Amino acid sequence: MNYHDLVYVIESRQSVLCVGLDSDVSKLPSGFAAKPASLADFNKAIIDATAEYAVAYKPNLAFYEAYGLEGWKALEETIGYLRNQYPGHLTIADAKRGDIGNTASQYAKGLLQELGFDAITVAPYMGRDSVEPFLLPDKWAVVLALTSNGGADDFQQQRMADGRPLYAHVLERVSQWIPTEQRMFVVGATRPEGLAHVRTLAEDTYFLVPGVGAQGGSVPEVLGAAGWKNRPGVGVLINASRSIQYASNGPDFAAAAAREASALQTQMAHWMQTERAWTDAEASADPLDVA
Amino acid sequence: MNYHDLVYVIESRQSVLCVGLDSDVSKLPSGFAAKPASLADFNKAIIDATAEYAVAYKPNLAFYEAYGLEGWKALEETIGYLRNQYPGHLTIADAKRGDIGNTASQYAKGLLQELGFDAITVAPYMGRDSVEPFLLPDKWAVVLALTSNGGADDFQQQRMADGRPLYAHVLERVSQWIPTEQRMFVVGATRPEGLAHVRTLAEDTYFLVPGVGAQGGSVPEVLGAAGWKNRPGVGVLINASRSIQYASNGPDFAAAAAREASALQTQMAHWMQTERAWTDAEASADPLDVA
Repeated sequence: MNYHDLVYVIESRQSVLCVGLDSDVSKLPSGFAAKPASLADFNKAIIDATAEYAVAYKPNLAFYEAYGLEGWKALEETIGYLRNQYPGHLTIADAKRGDIGNTASQYAKGLLQELGFDAITVAPYMGRDSVEPFLLPDKWAVVLALTSNGGADDFQQQRMADGRPLYAHVLERVSQWIPTEQRMFVVGATRPEGLAHVRTLAEDTYFLVPGVGAQGGSVPEVLGAAGWKNRPGVGVLINASRSIQYASNGPDFAAAAAREASALQTQMAHWMQTERAWTDAEASADPLDVA
Repeated sequence: MNYHDLVYVIESRQSVLCVGLDSDVSKLPSGFAAKPASLADFNKAIIDATAEYAVAYKPNLAFYEAYGLEGWKALEETIGYLRNQYPGHLTIADAKRGDIGNTASQYAKGLLQELGFDAITVAPYMGRDSVEPFLLPDKWAVVLALTSNGGADDFQQQRMADGRPLYAHVLERVSQWIPTEQRMFVVGATRPEGLAHVRTLAEDTYFLVPGVGAQGGSVPEVLGAAGWKNRPGVGVLINASRSIQYASNGPDFAAAAAREASALQTQMAHWMQTERAWTDAEASADPLDVA
């Protein structure tokens, strides 16, 4: 799914919801056997229940690798289901890979080409040649900038020689390496004022914001801080994982997941309908050409 | 394999050689079908040919993930073979994982517990809570500090507010989080003077040095710059991947791999026998107690 398609599905679905598939064998609802082979069926049920409210799905690869071959099978079945049944949803491999060029190319081959994910999360520590191999046609590199965990203070928030924090250097350099329509930044939402500041540093780039739901943060705060107000596409994907997947552990888990996703989408639609304004010319313009 | 065991096998085998298993379907020797199912057999042949010269093996996970389920099967078969046939060799999952705590715990479960690797390479960008979940008993976190790729200049070598480069902060902080006997740093060897400088910043920590062989650098230079001269254990693992694995693409590939590994081990043994000196008391002391 390319940039224009993403803008289109966000506007037509009135949603920026990304559903994280951090599917944990130990947390499956009561109807599922507590084994890795259940993960794909659970994911399909969550996807079916939430697809009308969501624009993206993001399996967290660690939760599948934890079970070796069986976990990898569940991941393949999940991405296959998404590609076949929901081609109008962006798929993000939350893998946080980062390695030298010939190795990064292997990750790109496996996750973007063989499995067919649209996007992959990438760690920037090893620099340019660890990021560029993910630039395949219509694929996205979703690069860690400022995360919402406590450890973000350890390096990301530390000041460089020019007084700016490390994450600001990451935003600037990565923006030089990857075209706008293929890049996204991971920016945490635990502090809305921080999110607003990051927006001033990367105005035209999509943010993937993980800190909503069980990790804290609210939809109006996130969109108020980082949402594009003067052009289509919003510029933000808001992820929720556990608050949707584990909304109930009873037989009503899918209905409960749908309710949670619907509630988030309602807030997103409300913001999109009340807080934005653009001219007809802006709305019909190429979003990549709007400053 | 714990710290004392590693010191023991290094001294008894007179080697610090780590053989990287970056096994590429497109580069298999002539006797192998060019398909992922051949990877495990190729790895077993390389391992059998090099085990007497090596102390560690390091599969690069990207090369297996590139082939999905079949690649993962080859990885499982390879680590299973190592654990059963060569329990006296350290096994390192070259995965460069780095994610928030509950996700990092899943990677630790999958790679260190289920697959049973002794060690995993870790990216430090997300900070403390992304590193600590790998601290399982007798397991190692091998943290990226200063890598040997061109992109190392982009962030790792950049100066922080106190004038020191980012990698120096990584060395310092990670050393506070992880005990000496469970930590290792990835330090590139393309510039020996850089390696010597890094040694002054982390004197008591094992380095995994990837830049020997096809990536450049020489054994005497690396050990001269970073090897411990006054106590057992050397303090360095030197990795070679392609120069060993693809020494020949004919039916003599295993013999050629053995020759390459033997040549490196001979250089290592020579350095260990000629460039070091310690008293009997130092030699018999607990290596973790020696300053």
